[in-house]
Amino acid sequence: MAPTDQTVLTAAPAPNPALLGLAAALRGIVGRDHVFEGTEAAILAGAAWGRLGCPLAAVRPGSTEEVSAIVRLAAAAGVPIVPWGGMSGLVDGCYAQGALALSLSRMRDIEEIDTEGATMTVEAGCVVEAAADAAEAAGLFLPLDLGSRGTATIGGVISTNAGGNRVLRYGMARDMVLGLEVVLADGQVVSAMNHLIKNNTGYDVKQLFIGAEGTLGIVTRAVLRLRPAQPSQMTAFLGVARFADLPLLLRRLERGLGGQLSAFEVMWPEFHALVTTPPAAGHPVLAAPHAFYVLAESLGGDPAGDAARFESVLAAALAEGLVEDAVIAKSQAERDRMWALRDDVRQTARDGPIAAFDVSLPISAMEPYVARVRAGLAAHWPASEGPTPRLTVFGHLGDGNLHLIAGVPEPEDRPAVTEIVYAALPRLTGSISAEHGVGLQKRAHLSQSRSDPELALMRRLKQALDPAGVFNPGKILG
Amino acid sequence: MAPTDQTVLTAAPAPNPALLGLAAALRGIVGRDHVFEGTEAAILAGAAWGRLGCPLAAVRPGSTEEVSAIVRLAAAAGVPIVPWGGMSGLVDGCYAQGALALSLSRMRDIEEIDTEGATMTVEAGCVVEAAADAAEAAGLFLPLDLGSRGTATIGGVISTNAGGNRVLRYGMARDMVLGLEVVLADGQVVSAMNHLIKNNTGYDVKQLFIGAEGTLGIVTRAVLRLRPAQPSQMTAFLGVARFADLPLLLRRLERGLGGQLSAFEVMWPEFHALVTTPPAAGHPVLAAPHAFYVLAESLGGDPAGDAARFESVLAAALAEGLVEDAVIAKSQAERDRMWALRDDVRQTARDGPIAAFDVSLPISAMEPYVARVRAGLAAHWPASEGPTPRLTVFGHLGDGNLHLIAGVPEPEDRPAVTEIVYAALPRLTGSISAEHGVGLQKRAHLSQSRSDPELALMRRLKQALDPAGVFNPGKILG
Repeated sequence: MAPTDQTVLTAAPAPNPALLGLAAALRGIVGRDHVFEGTEAAILAGAAWGRLGCPLAAVRPGSTEEVSAIVRLAAAAGVPIVPWGGMSGLVDGCYAQGALALSLSRMRDIEEIDTEGATMTVEAGCVVEAAADAAEAAGLFLPLDLGSRGTATIGGVISTNAGGNRVLRYGMARDMVLGLEVVLADGQVVSAMNHLIKNNTGYDVKQLFIGAEGTLGIVTRAVLRLRPAQPSQMTAFLGVARFADLPLLLRRLERGLGGQLSAFEVMWPEFHALVTTPPAAGHPVLAAPHAFYVLAESLGGDPAGDAARFESVLAAALAEGLVEDAVIAKSQAERDRMWALRDDVRQTARDGPIAAFDVSLPISAMEPYVARVRAGLAAHWPASEGPTPRLTVFGHLGDGNLHLIAGVPEPEDRPAVTEIVYAALPRLTGSISAEHGVGLQKRAHLSQSRSDPELALMRRLKQALDPAGVFNPGKILG
Repeated sequence: MAPTDQTVLTAAPAPNPALLGLAAALRGIVGRDHVFEGTEAAILAGAAWGRLGCPLAAVRPGSTEEVSAIVRLAAAAGVPIVPWGGMSGLVDGCYAQGALALSLSRMRDIEEIDTEGATMTVEAGCVVEAAADAAEAAGLFLPLDLGSRGTATIGGVISTNAGGNRVLRYGMARDMVLGLEVVLADGQVVSAMNHLIKNNTGYDVKQLFIGAEGTLGIVTRAVLRLRPAQPSQMTAFLGVARFADLPLLLRRLERGLGGQLSAFEVMWPEFHALVTTPPAAGHPVLAAPHAFYVLAESLGGDPAGDAARFESVLAAALAEGLVEDAVIAKSQAERDRMWALRDDVRQTARDGPIAAFDVSLPISAMEPYVARVRAGLAAHWPASEGPTPRLTVFGHLGDGNLHLIAGVPEPEDRPAVTEIVYAALPRLTGSISAEHGVGLQKRAHLSQSRSDPELALMRRLKQALDPAGVFNPGKILG
């Protein structure tokens, strides 16, 4: 997903004399080179994918002890803290107006890879791609993979419980975390650096911080579970005639591939048309048009056997009519061309402003859902009064996750588009955020997906862990 | 695992006049047939695998609303509540002396199986085997499987985050839970009945209650993730010459079987000898003795292809010398005979009292760990003064989980045996409870596996959710 609004840093407020003491104290903790005041924080912001506001100051600790000292200092001064990882989140979770931004960018060590136990111990600021490369170099596999792999940090993907391209087989970030080290709002360091797959010694406290978007604690280190290397990769691009065939095909591939299916990505025809026509660089993989396009991929350890199995499962699906046409990638270049179509999301913005959504719902509810959104857009912008906003749809169908991209005719139309997309979701059984999180952008709609007792319980947890509201104020619960 | 101490219900105390009103009020909620006073509660206890004490009363609600009303009543009366599921736990988590026992046994409906979405919605009192059978009848697969499958309930396996025989591939109970309904200590019902694989709308509150052993809330309903049916099952019994070959063999099978390996159970020679000599009914599968025995199993969707792959991966392991001898089960009867050896745990108690342990630690630390325990037992009971207590070892090596069974010469020796087994574990990197939980039995040793800040955080959660200590008093944190 590409960013849609790139307002990164707003103008600095007038210098705040009360902060002079804070900045000096921060320099005492991390050294003079790692404290940035006002707009200087832009140095740390890099290519942030969302709004950051203007932080009072930004600080770049080099160790967990320094993070702890900073938290104690800020808490005592009543200054909130916003943790910054790779800042490629899509929900303004790093917005730090008036707060102290705490960047984990110096804490990026890969501390240990245990090849026998298949675990990796990393600092939170380590970039996902670097961690994955290190796992591969050690003959193992970190399955987490997402578009922002080159910027997103381990701390960030844990704090947002990131999903990505291989959730179907390996789960979300949560499923890869064995242990965590977290700094609490009173500066206490909780080391729960478990390396074990099984450990039922009381509450699994790390779960609290996974997906909490930095509102309950700051993740400083993690132990990740690695998997065996998967030397064989089979990829196919498929044409499917009707929506009802998609879940049948998914279950057929899951069954036939015996747990090796790692991706089942679906493109609706509008999306496919956009990414295969100029100015997009892509070309159709299949000879004729279809109602739906599927990118299916399996990972395995037996290249010859895996290829034969993949081909025979697809041949059976073709023979049964679940698939109209299929092309299997014969080279890495062909595989890359298939994924490039799926990943060329920026085409959806080529004709004007868009709003991007990340919903999940039962597969059986998807087709009527997309139809309701289309009808809602058409009712709000009737064709008689000009073009209806374009809706392009694609997503990780195997995970129940759709990305909808809607045109936004005028900036003031954004709330109406949002309302149409969310109101069409089945209340409490659909999710307004499958994988991107809530941040600032979705908190007003949270009750669409969460019941009042759930929200009350979340508030109780926030109150228990961060009663003064030190961490990432305004995110998730507002 | 079989129970070791079958002291189920202790003698009833004198009738408590203060409770007459409570029992009457309970009857008002659930009807007269579902309230049991004093030793009458034995009717509900069935074949409990641990101590239950003598509850003040036991109650059997028929709905979540009734559970909520009972909790409000008991909380107001200052009477603690102990939830009862199948009562086949091994750590005295159902001990209810002086408390109100709340049995979920009437709430056992399988409410829905969504074959397209591959989910199952069940009440907490549903027995695991019944849920698994219903999934199979619907053409799907509930991977959770453990020795107590015929008694353990869904609510119980969730509350203890049960493991079992297929963790290696499918994870623990936690990994199968999509949604939960929970009654909190103030009687509030939190419905978090999510059906979605991906749902990042704020804190994942259900995680709190999974593995909390009923101390934070009472699980009343759950949504479970099902998997595709796995019509092919390949099972082998292997002889291995040295411990160092075990992790190599595990990684080799994981890689070669491309994610299909579902079990990698290891038996130490003392265990193998016990289960293959009279009075045990079992016989050796392999012709000659070996230093270690492995039961390996894969599940898949392509019977012919899976068999060929399994055989070729094993043949390669034989050729490399990782395996000394191998027998592949050619029928269900042969498979059952192999599993019967692994499951005949009661043989470990045939010569006298035992203490059973459930530890986890990195595979690389296992061999020296078992040697330290043996040395500790030999030092405490030197051969010159009589027989050293027998130590038998087996377990889910693929998960880092060992079960150690030690003889207990005299009842008063139990603390010394326990101390030797736990003290030999690497502090904080080994777990005193891989899958059985803490309950009453292990709470004194919790600091062996959890740091002080972790324990403080657990207490903070307990305080936030159950400040009056209504739920399962004394369990986990004491």
